[in-house]
Amino acid sequence: MADLDESIRMYTGLFGAELLQRTTNDQEGLEAALLRMGEADLELLAALRVDSPIGKFLARRGPGLHHVAYAVTDIETKLAEARAAGMELIDSTPRLGMHGAKIAFIHPKSAGGVLTELVEA
Amino acid sequence: MADLDESIRMYTGLFGAELLQRTTNDQEGLEAALLRMGEADLELLAALRVDSPIGKFLARRGPGLHHVAYAVTDIETKLAEARAAGMELIDSTPRLGMHGAKIAFIHPKSAGGVLTELVEA
Repeated sequence: MADLDESIRMYTGLFGAELLQRTTNDQEGLEAALLRMGEADLELLAALRVDSPIGKFLARRGPGLHHVAYAVTDIETKLAEARAAGMELIDSTPRLGMHGAKIAFIHPKSAGGVLTELVEA
Repeated sequence: MADLDESIRMYTGLFGAELLQRTTNDQEGLEAALLRMGEADLELLAALRVDSPIGKFLARRGPGLHHVAYAVTDIETKLAEARAAGMELIDSTPRLGMHGAKIAFIHPKSAGGVLTELVEA
């Protein structure tokens, strides 16, 4: 997102989303706004540095959809299933995400071009 | 999606999605598979022709995330609000989508680079 405040206003104003949390993550070089939209969560990400992963994505692709995350109950089992199905994993074992949940990413090349995240809620 | 069958298998097998409907739309030049994932619907789109909107998207960007749709209760009001907020509308009035619902698209340039669809369920 080029302008996080403007995007938050759009989603809360026009779409009635609720702002749950706003976080700065210096290690990942990003600022995040977590919104609740009905039953789904929507996270807006802005770059703090041009050389951060999100900064590089924005430079290469411009603002847009970055990834999709699915809640799973047992992330280790899902990762093993994905590996057994021949999918390329970015995270071979789960790591802790910004909100303290166990997360792991699947490479877009194995998931129809979509950077796909598993989150154990 | 490059291979609709393969993608359906991935989402139903790995993520436990339920295949609700599979549709061919000759006018739009696409084949669609509607999946239910928890409380969200996920629609996989494949091109029937390289010169269809989805065919052009795939040629330009490769497989990936195409758009995000939000369910609204009164699409005319939401469109009027979006217009009043200065957003550029692709559909200035709602039209009927593949599944018989009233739909309208907001241009990505007004929505943080995300092609955004409103659906009156």
